[in-house]
Amino acid sequence: MTTVRVGVIMGSQSDWETMKHACDMLDELGVAYEKKVVSAHRTPDLMFDYAASAIERGLQVIIAGAGGAAHLPGMVAAKTELPVIGVPVKTSTLNGMDSLLSIVQMPGGIPVATVAIGHAGATNAGLLAAQILGAFDPEIQAKVKARRARITQTVLESSDNL
Amino acid sequence: MTTVRVGVIMGSQSDWETMKHACDMLDELGVAYEKKVVSAHRTPDLMFDYAASAIERGLQVIIAGAGGAAHLPGMVAAKTELPVIGVPVKTSTLNGMDSLLSIVQMPGGIPVATVAIGHAGATNAGLLAAQILGAFDPEIQAKVKARRARITQTVLESSDNL
Amino acid sequence: MTTVRVGVIMGSQSDWETMKHACDMLDELGVAYEKKVVSAHRTPDLMFDYAASAIERGLQVIIAGAGGAAHLPGMVAAKTELPVIGVPVKTSTLNGMDSLLSIVQMPGGIPVATVAIGHAGATNAGLLAAQILGAFDPEIQAKVKARRARITQTVLESSDNL
Amino acid sequence: MTTVRVGVIMGSQSDWETMKHACDMLDELGVAYEKKVVSAHRTPDLMFDYAASAIERGLQVIIAGAGGAAHLPGMVAAKTELPVIGVPVKTSTLNGMDSLLSIVQMPGGIPVATVAIGHAGATNAGLLAAQILGAFDPEIQAKVKARRARITQTVLESSDNL
Amino acid sequence: MTTVRVGVIMGSQSDWETMKHACDMLDELGVAYEKKVVSAHRTPDLMFDYAASAIERGLQVIIAGAGGAAHLPGMVAAKTELPVIGVPVKTSTLNGMDSLLSIVQMPGGIPVATVAIGHAGATNAGLLAAQILGAFDPEIQAKVKARRARITQTVLESSDNL
Amino acid sequence: MTTVRVGVIMGSQSDWETMKHACDMLDELGVAYEKKVVSAHRTPDLMFDYAASAIERGLQVIIAGAGGAAHLPGMVAAKTELPVIGVPVKTSTLNGMDSLLSIVQMPGGIPVATVAIGHAGATNAGLLAAQILGAFDPEIQAKVKARRARITQTVLESSDNL
Amino acid sequence: MTTVRVGVIMGSQSDWETMKHACDMLDELGVAYEKKVVSAHRTPDLMFDYAASAIERGLQVIIAGAGGAAHLPGMVAAKTELPVIGVPVKTSTLNGMDSLLSIVQMPGGIPVATVAIGHAGATNAGLLAAQILGAFDPEIQAKVKARRARITQTVLESSDNL
Amino acid sequence: MTTVRVGVIMGSQSDWETMKHACDMLDELGVAYEKKVVSAHRTPDLMFDYAASAIERGLQVIIAGAGGAAHLPGMVAAKTELPVIGVPVKTSTLNGMDSLLSIVQMPGGIPVATVAIGHAGATNAGLLAAQILGAFDPEIQAKVKARRARITQTVLESSDNL
Repeated sequence: MTTVRVGVIMGSQSDWETMKHACDMLDELGVAYEKKVVSAHRTPDLMFDYAASAIERGLQVIIAGAGGAAHLPGMVAAKTELPVIGVPVKTSTLNGMDSLLSIVQMPGGIPVATVAIGHAGATNAGLLAAQILGAFDPEIQAKVKARRARITQTVLESSDNL
Repeated sequence: MTTVRVGVIMGSQSDWETMKHACDMLDELGVAYEKKVVSAHRTPDLMFDYAASAIERGLQVIIAGAGGAAHLPGMVAAKTELPVIGVPVKTSTLNGMDSLLSIVQMPGGIPVATVAIGHAGATNAGLLAAQILGAFDPEIQAKVKARRARITQTVLESSDNL
Repeated sequence: MTTVRVGVIMGSQSDWETMKHACDMLDELGVAYEKKVVSAHRTPDLMFDYAASAIERGLQVIIAGAGGAAHLPGMVAAKTELPVIGVPVKTSTLNGMDSLLSIVQMPGGIPVATVAIGHAGATNAGLLAAQILGAFDPEIQAKVKARRARITQTVLESSDNL
Repeated sequence: MTTVRVGVIMGSQSDWETMKHACDMLDELGVAYEKKVVSAHRTPDLMFDYAASAIERGLQVIIAGAGGAAHLPGMVAAKTELPVIGVPVKTSTLNGMDSLLSIVQMPGGIPVATVAIGHAGATNAGLLAAQILGAFDPEIQAKVKARRARITQTVLESSDNL
Repeated sequence: MTTVRVGVIMGSQSDWETMKHACDMLDELGVAYEKKVVSAHRTPDLMFDYAASAIERGLQVIIAGAGGAAHLPGMVAAKTELPVIGVPVKTSTLNGMDSLLSIVQMPGGIPVATVAIGHAGATNAGLLAAQILGAFDPEIQAKVKARRARITQTVLESSDNL
Repeated sequence: MTTVRVGVIMGSQSDWETMKHACDMLDELGVAYEKKVVSAHRTPDLMFDYAASAIERGLQVIIAGAGGAAHLPGMVAAKTELPVIGVPVKTSTLNGMDSLLSIVQMPGGIPVATVAIGHAGATNAGLLAAQILGAFDPEIQAKVKARRARITQTVLESSDNL
Repeated sequence: MTTVRVGVIMGSQSDWETMKHACDMLDELGVAYEKKVVSAHRTPDLMFDYAASAIERGLQVIIAGAGGAAHLPGMVAAKTELPVIGVPVKTSTLNGMDSLLSIVQMPGGIPVATVAIGHAGATNAGLLAAQILGAFDPEIQAKVKARRARITQTVLESSDNL
Repeated sequence: MTTVRVGVIMGSQSDWETMKHACDMLDELGVAYEKKVVSAHRTPDLMFDYAASAIERGLQVIIAGAGGAAHLPGMVAAKTELPVIGVPVKTSTLNGMDSLLSIVQMPGGIPVATVAIGHAGATNAGLLAAQILGAFDPEIQAKVKARRARITQTVLESSDNL
């Protein structure tokens, strides 16, 4: 059985449209993960339990996506020593600038590894989790490397379509 | 003995320079309060306990100040049904715009009553707490009214100094 | 007969699309309210009369929504000692950042309890009004608590839909 | 006796450091004016009286400066048919961007003639008032023209100092 | 024959969708005006001629709308002593924030009376022009006053539609 | 001999004032690192060599700090499969907002783990590197945990100083 | 055979919708160019080769368009002494403000000639390349001049359509 | 005698503190230039004459610096077919963001080659002018190349100072 090494959580079911891109990437790279809606504001106790038990449950990286006053990534980071990757979800009013600042501007002592706003950020969160694992796991690192070679090739060929 | 009805908390001792203005206002209006450093990120369990026990301890309003990825007001609001007033503390990099957006852009379901960035906001947090209490306590409301009359008078006289 | 304890006002009829979310929340929690279009710029005298008579008419909280150079919440706050909740309505040009800053950045002396831009903010304005009343009324506080339990449950179940 | 044609008001005595530049310009161009502290939030009734009586008192232009949630220019404009010039005063937190948006983003129906943030804006408010009067008064227009010729000359000579 | 007292210019034909709201307002208030496309960047000489001859042609106010790096209002202001009203046209990339800053942040010496971004701003530009004329022409001032009474009435009645 | 597992690089010697906070944290947690000035724009070939050889030299995490059009973290990330942590250095003009957006808004395919602007961000970069290593090294994770317990204690005691 | 003097590159095939406006302008002015997808992050080696060989291949100007953390123009500029024109492509989240700051805020030593965000910027990139060539080639300069005369004429006639 | 090929102009004598960095760079690279204060708003006619006569006077590149509503670069560009480099001067209120947007957001048809805000931008304006000349003048290009080699060396050595 594959060990689940990455936890993907999000503040609301509506964030799934964004966060599924993180899961797609983990699937593509063959990294086992679990996914769950965990709301900082509406399920604070669940959030604390989830974060506090993550290490003993075998997780090595947590990916957390949220929008607006996006407190999920930072609060999870406050309750675990694992690296936490924060994905700022795009918002209808401020386009995710509020999400980005709420996630990235953490005070000294509790870091969140923040990626870009929206879909590209979610994709990269999955990739970053894999790169973290890959720094200790040659097989995953090789998969990341192979994926890069593929996208390099795609770019090289795309000039023909201009 | 006066009952403590307002809790004033802040994410860091360095926020006291800002948050003391809230306390000064409560002192001026004769509203009893307690004050404490409670960090969302560095003392998350204390924060949850503080918020979850606030009602039974007799508090009626909580004022919470924080800067940067300011999660304290919103997370306290997630753990109590009391009204929570959030004070965005000015930051050295983004001038408190990060604090403001992290506090005010709460998702539907958990409100934070946000005031202005910095000192003026802290002063107004104390005043807003008094106005909330005053809506149910004629004596406090009368003190708020008297204070307004005094500042009106000050403004009226200030034209002589131009 | 139920006493009207909350006044919901807005600067323009077009703000109703946003502000109805505040009224929906008050309806859900069984808090009696009145609603009215009151424009700071187009009906300034009505605005002053409305604010100045609010206490004697029995109101305990005022919710005011406006967009752009949103002066309604702050000006109403200047004419009453009641707590005033300001809702920044989203604008077509600056997405409500103008509304937010016009409402939240009040000078020391006259606070406005500001919530998020747009629909989520209006929902939360209704909830915040209820939480203020609830701090002095166990029945309303219990309804807020029950509502939270319901939305917590909804979140817990939503992971099944990912 | 010279008729006072321009009213210069400001929300706080501390705005005088900025607003004196408007008065200096009016002095330089020989335009009679009155100056006064009128606070939208702390002296709302005075503000309404000032604006409502401006026409009958013979004013033809009002210059209003304020900072933060700067409601003074827009509220004065709501109570008079005279042209109102708004000066966004620089703020310690958001550098006057809050003042600017609070003044300029007026809804259709009540305009405020907004100038630049801070000292340059105050100077230009005085000049704009003079240009408005000058459109109907050749003597003032001639003074504006002469002033321009002088500053043109100053610029032309300043290359020698590089 | 009615004397043309207001010039309405815009940087591009595509700005007409915005600027027609200024003309509609002038029509409504019975103020004669002329309208023209004058581009700062594509017809600089026409722009200078237009501005430099405005006074002798009998204009008393110029309304200039432009978007992006919006230089038209400020450059026209540099070539005439008449009051110039600047309308920041909304842009597809930065929503008109670029237009606003390019118009309002004029250096001391050459003011532009800036109004809100987009349609509301254009409407208000027409109204501001009328208010400037009205400060010297009781008939126009009376029309502005009557219009205000009408919109006040409209607001008062609109509460019925909530 | 301790293996160097973290590389700390920065775009300019002047970034050292910020980036030394990352090194201080690594020192505090006993994580071996190397430090170097590597400029994306002034030493592009060195940058590529540094990144391309990082894995074979035994590095497991790279921390890269830069300001303004901060291309160093993203370009290093493009040339290695290791996780790259980006520190936006505060700038004299835009306070580091330019650095932040240049680092965090990476396109899908090449992630950068971005932390807060300035000193707090650099501190957190060191901590994040340690947390990444700690996910695979119980000793380092224990040190992170112990450090957290210490700062929690500091916060708990700091209320006495208000 | 016409010598290719301008290289038009872009970070992704999806940027072509924007960058084709640069090519259209070069076509209109009869300037020979080559076009290619060159990604800073996905084909870094190609990018370096392209830039490093540009002079010897006879190019005199490079136009580079990219969006988000737009590193292409600056990195190309770091590897060639040719003038590099950067086009900030509009992004779905931050409207191209991220692209703009990533391109324009280059540190002293390596300039990028930045144009406006989006289509207008791409058009102007083509034009700017022609103006650079035209400063040394009277024929191209004459074509630029003739084009200007045509668009001046178009503006002059467009007033008829208001 | 050396032919003057670059014109360096600025909107105000106070911009010299910034713009001297452009001149220093031109001096360092041995490019002859002239410098002058030319204000778009205070000396509009001089500005037009300067721009319109630039080609016949032998200039090949113009560098124009200005702050706030910075119209100088764009208006000069409107009156000459030469490439115009715009330097956004830092402002006391908005840090030069107003200058940047006023310069870079030019409409399609009239480009300005915009560099970074402030000193670094001015330095790069001088360098960009040299690179433009260098594309047609091997001697200047060689000097640019030599300068780059020197700063590369400086960076390589600077790691010793950490």
